[in-house]
Order: sequence, then C-alpha cells, then structure tokens
Amino acid sequence: MKKPVWAIIGGGNGGQAMAAHLGTMGFQVRIYDVKEENVEVINKQGGIQFEDGVVDGFGKVEFATMDMGKAVVGADMVVIVAPALYHKDIATKMAPHLVDGQFVFIHPGATCGSLEVRKVLDDEGCKADIVVGEAMSLLYAARSPRFGVASILGIKEELMVAAMPSNKTKEMLEILNLAFPQMYAGENVLETSFENLNCMVHPGPSLLNVAQIESGRDWKYYYDGITPSIGAYVEKMDAARVELGKKYNLKLTNILDWYVKLYSAKGETLTDAVNNTKAYADISGQKTLRTRYILEDVPMSLVPLAELGKVAGVRQDMVETMIDLGEFLMGEEFRKNGRNAAALGIEGMSVEDLLKYVTTGKKN
Amino acid sequence: MKKPVWAIIGGGNGGQAMAAHLGTMGFQVRIYDVKEENVEVINKQGGIQFEDGVVDGFGKVEFATMDMGKAVVGADMVVIVAPALYHKDIATKMAPHLVDGQFVFIHPGATCGSLEVRKVLDDEGCKADIVVGEAMSLLYAARSPRFGVASILGIKEELMVAAMPSNKTKEMLEILNLAFPQMYAGENVLETSFENLNCMVHPGPSLLNVAQIESGRDWKYYYDGITPSIGAYVEKMDAARVELGKKYNLKLTNILDWYVKLYSAKGETLTDAVNNTKAYADISGQKTLRTRYILEDVPMSLVPLAELGKVAGVRQDMVETMIDLGEFLMGEEFRKNGRNAAALGIEGMSVEDLLKYVTTGKKN
Repeated sequence: MKKPVWAIIGGGNGGQAMAAHLGTMGFQVRIYDVKEENVEVINKQGGIQFEDGVVDGFGKVEFATMDMGKAVVGADMVVIVAPALYHKDIATKMAPHLVDGQFVFIHPGATCGSLEVRKVLDDEGCKADIVVGEAMSLLYAARSPRFGVASILGIKEELMVAAMPSNKTKEMLEILNLAFPQMYAGENVLETSFENLNCMVHPGPSLLNVAQIESGRDWKYYYDGITPSIGAYVEKMDAARVELGKKYNLKLTNILDWYVKLYSAKGETLTDAVNNTKAYADISGQKTLRTRYILEDVPMSLVPLAELGKVAGVRQDMVETMIDLGEFLMGEEFRKNGRNAAALGIEGMSVEDLLKYVTTGKKN
Repeated sequence: MKKPVWAIIGGGNGGQAMAAHLGTMGFQVRIYDVKEENVEVINKQGGIQFEDGVVDGFGKVEFATMDMGKAVVGADMVVIVAPALYHKDIATKMAPHLVDGQFVFIHPGATCGSLEVRKVLDDEGCKADIVVGEAMSLLYAARSPRFGVASILGIKEELMVAAMPSNKTKEMLEILNLAFPQMYAGENVLETSFENLNCMVHPGPSLLNVAQIESGRDWKYYYDGITPSIGAYVEKMDAARVELGKKYNLKLTNILDWYVKLYSAKGETLTDAVNNTKAYADISGQKTLRTRYILEDVPMSLVPLAELGKVAGVRQDMVETMIDLGEFLMGEEFRKNGRNAAALGIEGMSVEDLLKYVTTGKKN
C-alpha cells in the first residue's frame, strides 16, 4: 500500500497534536485551520514542534492552509479534529472538494457525527464515492500551548473506530492502522456513537454542578464534581444507554467498566472510580456554564442519544431530563439546533432502517 | 363572639410556637403531638415557655395529648401545624372526631393541602359539616430548642388564608383574626396554594445544589445556593406559575415582588434580592439531599403545582423537570406518592370544575 496522505482539518489541541504526530512518523500531512496566525506560524516553521509530553521532536507538515480545497485535494485520509459544533460547517465547506476514494474520518465523532456529516454532504450535493467514519473519542490527551506547538500528554492504548457504511470499516482501518495500530473496528458508527463517554460525564455532571460552577471557588471536575448522587445519576443514565444499545444489536460497555479498562480505575461506583483515578486529580472544574461541556455536549451528544432512544421506542428519560435542564438553565434550544433526527437524516426511520443505513449507506 | 377554643395539631417548632402564642393571648388552647416526652413536659409545666425571640412569657396550655379525639373535641379551630407529608395521616386520625361547625385550618397548607385533607376526610366517611382552610405559609419563623420551650424569631406582618369552600373564608377569618389580625383572605385555596413560595425556593434550588450539598463544605442556602443561573431558573419557573394562575382567574404575585413585600429585598433579580436580604445571611445549606426541602416539597408542592398545570392544559415544564430530577437523584416516586390528581380528588376535572369545587365545596 502506498503511504497515505493525511489532511488534518482543525488546528486546535487535537489537530496540531495529530498532524505533528503523523509528521514525526514520516507521513505526508497537511493541516487546515481558520486561524490565520496559526497557519502562518506552522508554514514558517515547516511543521509543528513538540514540547513536553510523551512525544518529542518536530513534526514536519507539508503545508498549513485556510483553504479547504487545498487541504483536501490529494489527501487519502481527511481527518476532522474539531469540536462537534463545527462538523456541519466543515462538511459543508468540504463537500465540493471531495473525490472518489477518500475517507473522511471524524476524530472524534461525538455522538452520531458520521450521520450528521453524511447528511450534510448529501444535502450539499456531494456525489463522490467517499466513506465517512469516526472514532469514539480523541486518541490524545493533548494541548497546544501556542501556535505551532503541540504537547501530547497521553495516547490511548485502544480506540474504537467505525466507517459508514460499516462494510468499509476494514478498508478505513487499513490506512489508519499504518499510523495508529491501537485503532480497532467497532460494529458500526452507532457503536462508536453510543460509546462516546463524554456524553455521560460532561453535560450531566456539568449541569448538576451549576452551584459549584457559579460559586467562584476553585474545584476539581471529577474529584469534587462527581459527588455520590451525581455519580449515581450518571451510572443510571449509562445503564439505560447500555440497554438501548441492545435494541441495536450492540453489546456496549458500561461506564464503570470503561474506567477500569481505560484508567485501571478501582471502585464499586463511578464516584469511587473517578476518585481513585490519579489522572483526574488535577482536572479543574469550569467557572462558567458556557463551556463545551454543556454548549457542545448537550446538543451534539445528549440530543442524538435521545433520538436513538426515540427511534427504538425507548425514551431515555434521564438524558431528556438533562437536555431539559440544559435548555432551561442556558436559555438555549438544544433539541432544535442540535443533532436531532432531521439533522442526522434519520427522520421516520425504524431500528431496522437505521441499521441498514449505517451498514450499507443506503436508506430504505 | 365567644372566645374560640383552639386545638394545635403538631408539637414541633411551629406548633409549640403557635400554641404558646395563643396561650399568652389568653385563649383556651390544647396541643396534640406524637412525641410522648413533649406531651409530658408541656402537661407538667402547664404550658410552653418562651425563650429568646420576639415573644416573651409563658403560654398556658389547657393540655397536651397524644389522643387526637381528645385534642379535637370541643375545639372551634383545629390547626394542623405539621409537615405536609403528615397531613394525610393527621386527617385520617381526625376524621372520626370532627363535628359540625369546626374549622380545620392547615398552617401552612403547602400546595393543595386543603384539597388533600378534604379528600381524606371524604374517604374516611367524615360527614360533619366542617370547613377546611389553609395559610399560604407559616406565620412564624420559630424553633423549639427543647420540649416545652418555644422561640419565635419573627412573625409575618401579613398572611394570606382561604377556606374551602371559599364562601366560608370570611367566617374562618373572623375567628383567626381574633388572635391573628395579620391574616387576610385569599380568593380561594388555589390562591394560597399557588402562592406557596417554598415550592419555588426549596426543592428546585436544593436539587440544583446537589454538588454543594454533597461537598461536605459549609454553605449558605440563599447566599451561596441561589446562584445567578439557579435564581434565573426559579424566576422563569415562577413566571410560568403566575401565568398559570391567570387560567384560574388569579392575579398572583411574582416571587421577586413577594421578596420586596415580605423582606423589603432590593434587587433586579432573585439572586440579587436574596443576597440583599439580611434575614437570609445566616441560613445554612443542607449537607444531605434527604431533607424536607426535597423529600417533602417535591411531592407535596411541585407535584400538585404540576397537576394544576395539567388541569389547565398548560404543562409546567420547568416544574416537571425538577420533579424528574428529584425522582432520579433521590430514587423516589414523587408523582406516584405525592399530591397527584387522585390524591387531591380532582381527577378528570376541568378548570371550571375545580373552581366550582373550591368555591362551593361541591363536585360536578
């Protein structure tokens, strides 16, 4: 297999980390960003410098650009590394430039990112024979202290990915695994969507920490924020998620088992588990409600999860309550503006219709 | 008018304060309590001693008793001063002893206390021609440091009351005003129910303070607990309450205006107003979710308020969200076990039916 060309769409913490990481591996990689200064710095440097963290060196980058067409043309693997709120806009800009044989890999997809991007590409008249796919979370714990500099604090040992149609997952993984052997195949993009754990631990606990967030005090997101009752809420909401997965023939992993798997966490409850996870000790809590944990994760994760519940006729009550609370506390219309059934292109579908769609890419 | 005989049902903070207060005014008053030691102490003393607070002296009490029949027989005004969760049980015990001409005054009724008590009396086969009534809140800020001792920290300058049927409110007030000139007539028991402000400021803010409650830290209920977003939530929920009142021909007062009226609070928002209310400075926050602010106020205030919304065809979304949150966080079935339409005896009623019922005491 010829060495693939990568386009990284997004120059934030994750995007710069991934581009630089690929660069240090010797892959041809370009990066797209909307921030002019970042683009200039990376082009001037000819790449991205690692600083601190677990990966050292300089990641050569072919070019940085604010031109989506330039970024995408000639790339085998187009990787969207951007907040889910921007996926729609990115897909819209990308649509006219995609050509047969390309992969559009959303890293991560949040919940139902592939469905949304596929819908946007269709709406934009993209007829190219491309495959959309997604990861269940971000491979890296990363930050970018300044333009042109990346710091990877941790790399996951395993990361589930899936393509849509799912019969293309193997082909997509053959490319991804050249750089990232830890990526493995999920059943389909519903499994990667259901297993987006941020959907469980970001929006609900953030909303339920409103008093702490607005107290002005310093607090730790996991240590102070996942109190016994909040942890119990998440676990019950999560148990309903796992049950819902069964309706889609998916054997999902409950959140406590994920914590054991990902962080070797110990504890009988989620609250115990996060309190026993050293990696969480220093993660600070927000001081405003208006962060991505709510503004992004409610509309782009909880809303589509609720929609998957409706498709299966199993109302996700605890998810709906968090969406309600989010809408009232924030004065936002998350259901209307988020990944609802219409935005995902799955209106009126049954479970069977949806399974066929994610498996074959074809609608009934 | 002959001087009325009072029976105070409940020997807690409010009950002892009220009995002692009436005693100092020279009224004949007896008190019922389930706590044997309290009954013994009061009988031994021959009354209740005031200590600290704004009322001094010794309130003579005719007798204290654990026998509901003994407490009720011969009383003109039977006053229930007990947590709303006990109203049903108290009404059940009281039913066989009531006779024509007595008033049963629930002080306070929480939300729809009169409807619930009336339903219980009917179910228990009470045929006596009695009038049930209620106050919109407790007249006193009071505590009982120990059995037989009461401390009144404050007395409201105005207190709305209503009888059911409402054409008996005047008659009820003629008795109440002999001791409590600050009591005035509301339109009906729906108005006193709607104006139960605890329904707005207790359960919602308590639930939204789950993180603070479980933090183990000391915190102030109003100063720390009514953060800007929590205050805004309450104000929006309250605005819906006021709107709902219009469906019942009631001109309700919004919570901010109540704070101005009751505490001369100043502020553009509820958060500002409570932060400018000195009386609130020292009120501590809970350190457990399992207090009356949730366990009582959700089922006995939010649930009936939601029911009044349903009767009028105006879903109280923000109230319902708090009930949902309460049920999930507490693992309780508040709707099933609380003051739902069945418990209130208003199943299937329209607004007109309900207005007729509270006005005349007759169901269609």
